[in-house]
Amino acid sequence: MDTQPIYPIGQRIPNGMLEDNYPRNMWWVAALREEVTEKPLARWLLETPVVLYRTENGDTAAMYDRCPHRWAPLSEGHVDGSRIICPYHGMQFDTKGNCVKAPTQQMTPKSAQIPSYETREAGAYVWIWMGDQSAIDCEPPDVSYQTDPNWTFMSGYYDVAVNWVLVRENVLDLTHIPFLHANTFKQNDWVTAPETYMDGDTICYEQEFDLAPLSPLFCAGMGLPEDKPIKRKQVGRMPTLAVSFSDWMVHDPQPESGRRSDFVVRGCHIVTPAQRGRTHYFWGAAFDVPELSDEVIEKTSKNVVAAFDEDKDLLEKMQTQISNDPRGLNYLEVTLGADGAGIKVRQVLNKKLEAEGRSLK
Amino acid sequence: MDTQPIYPIGQRIPNGMLEDNYPRNMWWVAALREEVTEKPLARWLLETPVVLYRTENGDTAAMYDRCPHRWAPLSEGHVDGSRIICPYHGMQFDTKGNCVKAPTQQMTPKSAQIPSYETREAGAYVWIWMGDQSAIDCEPPDVSYQTDPNWTFMSGYYDVAVNWVLVRENVLDLTHIPFLHANTFKQNDWVTAPETYMDGDTICYEQEFDLAPLSPLFCAGMGLPEDKPIKRKQVGRMPTLAVSFSDWMVHDPQPESGRRSDFVVRGCHIVTPAQRGRTHYFWGAAFDVPELSDEVIEKTSKNVVAAFDEDKDLLEKMQTQISNDPRGLNYLEVTLGADGAGIKVRQVLNKKLEAEGRSLK
Amino acid sequence: MDTQPIYPIGQRIPNGMLEDNYPRNMWWVAALREEVTEKPLARWLLETPVVLYRTENGDTAAMYDRCPHRWAPLSEGHVDGSRIICPYHGMQFDTKGNCVKAPTQQMTPKSAQIPSYETREAGAYVWIWMGDQSAIDCEPPDVSYQTDPNWTFMSGYYDVAVNWVLVRENVLDLTHIPFLHANTFKQNDWVTAPETYMDGDTICYEQEFDLAPLSPLFCAGMGLPEDKPIKRKQVGRMPTLAVSFSDWMVHDPQPESGRRSDFVVRGCHIVTPAQRGRTHYFWGAAFDVPELSDEVIEKTSKNVVAAFDEDKDLLEKMQTQISNDPRGLNYLEVTLGADGAGIKVRQVLNKKLEAEGRSLK
Repeated sequence: MDTQPIYPIGQRIPNGMLEDNYPRNMWWVAALREEVTEKPLARWLLETPVVLYRTENGDTAAMYDRCPHRWAPLSEGHVDGSRIICPYHGMQFDTKGNCVKAPTQQMTPKSAQIPSYETREAGAYVWIWMGDQSAIDCEPPDVSYQTDPNWTFMSGYYDVAVNWVLVRENVLDLTHIPFLHANTFKQNDWVTAPETYMDGDTICYEQEFDLAPLSPLFCAGMGLPEDKPIKRKQVGRMPTLAVSFSDWMVHDPQPESGRRSDFVVRGCHIVTPAQRGRTHYFWGAAFDVPELSDEVIEKTSKNVVAAFDEDKDLLEKMQTQISNDPRGLNYLEVTLGADGAGIKVRQVLNKKLEAEGRSLK
Repeated sequence: MDTQPIYPIGQRIPNGMLEDNYPRNMWWVAALREEVTEKPLARWLLETPVVLYRTENGDTAAMYDRCPHRWAPLSEGHVDGSRIICPYHGMQFDTKGNCVKAPTQQMTPKSAQIPSYETREAGAYVWIWMGDQSAIDCEPPDVSYQTDPNWTFMSGYYDVAVNWVLVRENVLDLTHIPFLHANTFKQNDWVTAPETYMDGDTICYEQEFDLAPLSPLFCAGMGLPEDKPIKRKQVGRMPTLAVSFSDWMVHDPQPESGRRSDFVVRGCHIVTPAQRGRTHYFWGAAFDVPELSDEVIEKTSKNVVAAFDEDKDLLEKMQTQISNDPRGLNYLEVTLGADGAGIKVRQVLNKKLEAEGRSLK
Repeated sequence: MDTQPIYPIGQRIPNGMLEDNYPRNMWWVAALREEVTEKPLARWLLETPVVLYRTENGDTAAMYDRCPHRWAPLSEGHVDGSRIICPYHGMQFDTKGNCVKAPTQQMTPKSAQIPSYETREAGAYVWIWMGDQSAIDCEPPDVSYQTDPNWTFMSGYYDVAVNWVLVRENVLDLTHIPFLHANTFKQNDWVTAPETYMDGDTICYEQEFDLAPLSPLFCAGMGLPEDKPIKRKQVGRMPTLAVSFSDWMVHDPQPESGRRSDFVVRGCHIVTPAQRGRTHYFWGAAFDVPELSDEVIEKTSKNVVAAFDEDKDLLEKMQTQISNDPRGLNYLEVTLGADGAGIKVRQVLNKKLEAEGRSLK
């Protein structure tokens, strides 16, 4: 097969890569908090099989999901107190991955030690630090609104068969909304791209819109009729590669009597590299309205999922085609003016990789 | 694994190869004409993802199925007039692959250009030239009989999970008919191979048979009883690697009163390399009889498909075994006297490849 | 991906390898005797496609399953007398792989010769020697008890999606029984490992147990109540890498009047490398009791299968994880005192490989 580029490669970090293009020394989301229980949870994170569980004290534990004896997945075993027990020969390990009992013998083998990973519970999620455990220099980003009683938070999960960068860039690029989501989001005034800038290491964008109907996805959560013209400001932030927020700040210039005129709905896009060519995508949507009814939550979630299904479907087709095409990454990649935020993602990524002594240049 | 050959390799062009063993500078069949419509058609051709569509003027267009912006498949988008619109961000391309509009910005990016391919409509098919677009030096082979009202043409399609050469050689080798197709074709006198010769670049064979019943597959189309002895001449031609014809020229020495004594049924075997290890196989069968009834067409097609199913099944088993066997292509390949046409296929192929500066010697 | 070992590799022959880690010059089991009939049987053995059939004289024949003409699998053809006929062009081969007829021509091509393999029928199985056919220096191990009328033999088959060494070691390691099989074998006193020693090239172990109930899997075959304490000796032997035996020698100190006090149930574990990452596992269980009822056989088999399903499930999860993990074999492997027999397996394997001029050190 002729693997010469048809065109020179336009980007320093190629689109659609399949492996090992993520920083290790940062907090990634491993799971929803309620997913981590006394029943061991097996999950691929950063191309590593990880077992997560909760001890009898309620602490979360995470370690490499392979017994150092004969390599059985610990996730097939069970939890006893704070220990996880291997399904094959009953070896017992504490939360730091130290073997504390080998039941077939008197002596406990000191060398039988499993890599373990620091975890944090923040907002709705369990976060994990998979890189150098002595290099932890920060806490996960602030997502406290997710558990704030003044907000109503709804969330969901996708296993997306694409490299994580395709999802990460997709959620920072909003000019695809009037095209790919013309029949779901229906926010068809959003054709031009917002201004983007860096606030420290955080990618930011802001954009104000004239009076126009709000996307029907969010009307129920704000109690607005679907055809009412409102003012709108779109504000986005990506504090780390693991998470970005998309705020729809709505001002209703003529609220009904006794009603609020200002609302926020905050989209939350969490991506975690899983196995080669697979990405965990945890989405959240939150209104600054307490205790929305189950009916509103269900309706909103269903509509959000219908829109995100469109992303998953197209991104997977893109990735499949790139993977099957012998040309692979050897293709022109044209950048438009609207790609400001997406380009900043690649810059942040390359900076993080360089700090770890790696680079995708 | 021991990958030493068990025996020396018998052929210069190995059997069962999986990739990149096809000429590019020639006409291949992309689709049936009626498959190309205003709804974009995605098809792998020569290991390349191609989108085909028909403009509002009825012209056919074909281009590389990847947007040069963020690599979405254009085939997921839609056609507007003569343009195809990318599903992701709405970029618009003309039939030559030039970007003519980027809706998120004022300026149209000139560099956003997609490789496009020349097409022709001939006979029942759309043909495509995937190689050097400035090297087109011929038109597709003459298949005008397919749309000639004096003939009745029937056709079908298989996605065969084998390298295209396995299909190409199979349809030039007729001595497999009395073995593999003993219960379908039932043309069991065809045990010896025809004489083969070259007429310019066309592979030809001819063979005459004594009085014997005709294969029941073709009796209905000629209005012959299944047990009537007839004279028969088998004439084959392969004008290009893309297409070959197999004519069954029948002479009924004692026709019923008022009936023709001579008939032709022309088999047409079109193969196009698709993805690695996959081949598009378009078959055709035509009688030099106008307007055969739907009943005859349906019966004949059904019986032809039953026979070709036997080829597909065996060829796929061969390819699967070759692919899974660590010995791969390192195995003896004995050539028999009956392989004259098959060997000529490999000679034609190698000559074409050498003309493109490649070779499978 | 960082493929540096997290830990140094603990074993000379890595766990979980996927290919070509088996000796060729020895007898492996190809099939149950009743599987080899006049209908050709296709089976991958030692990463080689093999066709097995029985001639009209009742002899077994085995050869490489690829016609040397155009590489069709002979197993898709049929047997005529002692010959196998290719499905594609009818070429005929004798049991030694010699072409004896090419029906499309007068001359029989002498060069069209297929590798053939010696076979033996012993016990319930057909054994095959896939290596150097001139190096056969022994007969298959003695498994005559399988067809001895004083015994009742039952057997089964698994296609296990793991490398054969994982199965081979699993069946030599019995301390997994009280953990993995706590709810099936229920022989939960077997926590410590037996003594192991070599008797020539045969790996052996022996272990005596105090009064305790026998595993309920074997009570029906011996006519014992499930809760009756008995004395028990576990005796194991692995005469070759292809087969091992696990004898449960039972002594009932207080037999009911007129009943035997001593019984043996012999487990038989036969493994044969198949394709990359796949293993044929033929299990047998035999009681030294003639003509057990169908009811007892059915009940015992069902319970044995329930236990072996647990092995298959865990081993396949292990292999899948090892295969998908970019760390692959680069992981610590701690050996416990209980791994005596498993370690001897690797020593025997390495010695056999060295004798063939190969090594997995």
